[in-house]
Amino acid sequence: MSTSTISSAITSETAAEDQVQRVNLLRSTDDNYDGVIVELDQPMDSTTFISILRASVSHWKKLGKKGVWIKLPIHLVNLVEALVKEGFWYHHAEPKYLMLVYWIPESPSTIPANATHRVGIGSFVMNEKQEVLVVQENSGLFQGTGVWKFPTGVVDQGEDICVAAVREVKEETGVDSEFVEVLSFRQSHNSFFEKSDLFFVCMLRPLSSDIKTQRLEILNAQWMPFEEYAAQPFIQKSELLKYINDTCLAKMGGQYSGFSSVPTSSNFSDQKNYLYLSAGALKSSYSS
Amino acid sequence: MSTSTISSAITSETAAEDQVQRVNLLRSTDDNYDGVIVELDQPMDSTTFISILRASVSHWKKLGKKGVWIKLPIHLVNLVEALVKEGFWYHHAEPKYLMLVYWIPESPSTIPANATHRVGIGSFVMNEKQEVLVVQENSGLFQGTGVWKFPTGVVDQGEDICVAAVREVKEETGVDSEFVEVLSFRQSHNSFFEKSDLFFVCMLRPLSSDIKTQRLEILNAQWMPFEEYAAQPFIQKSELLKYINDTCLAKMGGQYSGFSSVPTSSNFSDQKNYLYLSAGALKSSYSS
Repeated sequence: MSTSTISSAITSETAAEDQVQRVNLLRSTDDNYDGVIVELDQPMDSTTFISILRASVSHWKKLGKKGVWIKLPIHLVNLVEALVKEGFWYHHAEPKYLMLVYWIPESPSTIPANATHRVGIGSFVMNEKQEVLVVQENSGLFQGTGVWKFPTGVVDQGEDICVAAVREVKEETGVDSEFVEVLSFRQSHNSFFEKSDLFFVCMLRPLSSDIKTQRLEILNAQWMPFEEYAAQPFIQKSELLKYINDTCLAKMGGQYSGFSSVPTSSNFSDQKNYLYLSAGALKSSYSS
Repeated sequence: MSTSTISSAITSETAAEDQVQRVNLLRSTDDNYDGVIVELDQPMDSTTFISILRASVSHWKKLGKKGVWIKLPIHLVNLVEALVKEGFWYHHAEPKYLMLVYWIPESPSTIPANATHRVGIGSFVMNEKQEVLVVQENSGLFQGTGVWKFPTGVVDQGEDICVAAVREVKEETGVDSEFVEVLSFRQSHNSFFEKSDLFFVCMLRPLSSDIKTQRLEILNAQWMPFEEYAAQPFIQKSELLKYINDTCLAKMGGQYSGFSSVPTSSNFSDQKNYLYLSAGALKSSYSS
């Protein structure tokens, strides 16, 4: 935003008192829940800011507004303390901004919670010889253990699960693949500060076989017979990993149906989003 | 934390110079990735803080530390500006604290991203008469539309998907139920500021039938024949909702297998976490 975020307004109550007074207010947009959103950009000293903020909150209160969202870029860090002293609190933050909120009414706040989950994927890439693509990592939990594991990674902001699964395999091993299904997923809590974690185990079909490890954290990668992978003591000790292996084995035997990805539109959004469902089961129910 | 977060240390380099000097450093704990975590609590003026911070960063650098995490409770908001001026940036925030990070080495930062997803659930509660439990909302997207929809809600921090599905039904309708399966899930992007959204459609079995709407945002609730629910024009216009209905119909006809929840332990964590998988398919593959 290059425009100034302060607008001048003649407030109705001063007009009613038969005297016209120009008041600086923060420029805001309305949200769908009787709230206002302010995106600040221009530098301001905190004393001036507080006086404009107070006039603005008073104005929004008269309009019956409830939640006030202020998005403060990191270069306006000098205004954080002023906002907190005025009763604002933190909602969420990203590297370049801090979002603060305030609730005007006496009633309890219905400000929605921040994002709660990180999302990860694990990619099982299986070839027609029933070999699975596995890696050894040189950082993190598995560093120095000699364990061969399937490629895993974090889903980037705005990235689809089925896209992330393919990307991680390419980055860690150089192998091209296509997404087949989500075989299972696990939800865990307090994995990273107070946040929760959703981990999706994906089955992928390889489109190439040559391995070129490309990332710093990957020590080695290879195609390994599934039996040999599954027999590693580390895996045998984990109830979770044994379940995951069972789904892979059942899938390889044609006896398992995970969730495939179907792009769908909705009346909530302009974009197509992926719905993950058991498409095989659905098709057979159509035809029966 | 009630203890002081400043520790006194005799740094090795001054001892080597044959003069002993007491230096105040921030008390920190190590993470698993060569980083340090500092949780501040005691009030401090920002000038004192900057001098201790600089000494601490210099100390950590000599130890080969990489990432520095500073968790700053909201009552220490006076230190935010100082930290940003020293090169720290925002990582994430919750109502009561702000987490700032700094990367010591010259190499690119490998600080992991913040939580990226909000998680929601929708609950399909179907009784033996093939009636579905539906509600009308008096706020949000559906306000004033007359649309009957299945109960939906946000998964709380630390809450399991299968628990949230049951809780939302109870809160919105007073009906007790038990979780059966995740029928499908949808991932969408930019749903709430820059964050993504994962929405899990769950099938539940009712354990009671009397309806008592309990929440402010619920105008009305009732058991409605599934056919009547599905025939609403709003639903017919949505590709997404039609797919969801198809999975429900297929499930009712015994032709669909979603993901049920299995508590599993792993060698990554002490807790039992839910793994969601197609348990029916897995069982039949064991027995075949």
